[in-house]
Amino acid sequence: MKFLRYGEPGQEKPGLLGSDGIIRDLSGQVPDLAAGALDPSKLTELAKLDVEALPAVNGNPRLGPCVAGTGKFICIGLNYSDHAAETGATVPPEPIIFMKATSAIVGPNDDLILPRGSEKTDWEVELGIVIGRTAKYVSEAEALDYVAGYCTVHDVSERAFQTERHGQWTKGKSCDTFGPTGPWLVTKDEVEDPQNLAMWLKVNGETMQDGSTKTMVYGVAYLVSYLSQFMSLHPGDVISTGTPPGVGMGMKPPRYLKAGDVVELGIEGLGSQKQRVRADD
Amino acid sequence: MKFLRYGEPGQEKPGLLGSDGIIRDLSGQVPDLAAGALDPSKLTELAKLDVEALPAVNGNPRLGPCVAGTGKFICIGLNYSDHAAETGATVPPEPIIFMKATSAIVGPNDDLILPRGSEKTDWEVELGIVIGRTAKYVSEAEALDYVAGYCTVHDVSERAFQTERHGQWTKGKSCDTFGPTGPWLVTKDEVEDPQNLAMWLKVNGETMQDGSTKTMVYGVAYLVSYLSQFMSLHPGDVISTGTPPGVGMGMKPPRYLKAGDVVELGIEGLGSQKQRVRADD
Repeated sequence: MKFLRYGEPGQEKPGLLGSDGIIRDLSGQVPDLAAGALDPSKLTELAKLDVEALPAVNGNPRLGPCVAGTGKFICIGLNYSDHAAETGATVPPEPIIFMKATSAIVGPNDDLILPRGSEKTDWEVELGIVIGRTAKYVSEAEALDYVAGYCTVHDVSERAFQTERHGQWTKGKSCDTFGPTGPWLVTKDEVEDPQNLAMWLKVNGETMQDGSTKTMVYGVAYLVSYLSQFMSLHPGDVISTGTPPGVGMGMKPPRYLKAGDVVELGIEGLGSQKQRVRADD
Repeated sequence: MKFLRYGEPGQEKPGLLGSDGIIRDLSGQVPDLAAGALDPSKLTELAKLDVEALPAVNGNPRLGPCVAGTGKFICIGLNYSDHAAETGATVPPEPIIFMKATSAIVGPNDDLILPRGSEKTDWEVELGIVIGRTAKYVSEAEALDYVAGYCTVHDVSERAFQTERHGQWTKGKSCDTFGPTGPWLVTKDEVEDPQNLAMWLKVNGETMQDGSTKTMVYGVAYLVSYLSQFMSLHPGDVISTGTPPGVGMGMKPPRYLKAGDVVELGIEGLGSQKQRVRADD
């Protein structure tokens, strides 16, 4: 099942995408795609609905982030061996984790806003894991029981803020609009193998990233288990699992986003995003 | 005014502490001490209430974190010159920022739980800034207009997780219970000078930290302004501003917390916390 949230920012309603391509409203079933609705057992129950009996949503509404109530937006650094190489880093012996501000989360097709003073805003297509049930000290074998599903995440990164403004990456990862999430939360049953999904990103139509989750160093189940050793993962938490090669920082010379650029990105089966880049007002 | 939240975890109600030392219930005035209630204009309005006419809360209830709906728990690293020196670091030319998971936030007197595998859990008393109004690109001169007030924060830190488990500090800062916050949100009018507050921390009655916010490198107004250049700050966000000297990591030999220890800490005018340390179940 492909769940989504539609409507204006802050007023999104829950919905789903039927196999006929029509968005159906889920407001009568769940208040939002947040804790409770995200529990795998609840998602299984929702998957049994007669989709065509649900109210069709007219027009072409804005899509919001595909999950609500995200308390943590956890990212994994350097989790593709070839991406690590392009940035001049080596693959770490344990996952590198850092946080993006949850206030960076926006819908998949919202504008990408360059923060004032930005000269090195870069792209990163990433597989997002959405937590469905509270997880603490879970094993790798049971880790997927706590996962609601997957989504496309754009881990936008200001490289100067991240690496030249002293200490810790958060500064370059947390700007407003730096976390487009969606279009869909795709449930596990529709993702046969999360470690074999093609992923891509284009800027102004030119392919920049063309990778696959199969070159991920630390996989989905491992990451959920690993993170749960350090902290409780809660429903709605999003884990963004790192990016394959092709970021602007790794190019010679480096390339970064500028106002007027259009970024498109997607992951096999999880849908695509399209953002117009603009300067902050 | 000293605002607080009382009751069992997840079911806290808003309240305040009267000058008579009695907790009064504020449920009739605001749904919680979250966005809306935290706006400085709303806090000013609440400060005009006839406190003695509010319902008194009987007994000695548990106190929860003094603010609800925290979307970001932002910390400043190495923000006291003498603390930087004790850790072997130099004061950075710009503030170092990192995130604690908001799921680490607990009440001021809740148990401090050592995560499994922890051998280097350390203490840090810190001045917390609570954001009251959305702030973006604000100047240092206007920064305090966006602040609801101040609180005591314990930035508990697992040093091995933070520095020996590869990359980024988040890993050692985000464990459950690693962010006791409170007891009170103290409004700005009661804090004459946030850069001149005594702060202290004891372990089993022995003083470990005995400092003052006057040795803070980057002050409250500067930090709010600085952070707002990178990301929107929202009501309920908490900024923990760094710790003075005396952490366990800086001792020769280093000292860390163990099950059975009792940590007490406080800041002048902002109230004190007391945590019993225990191993995770």
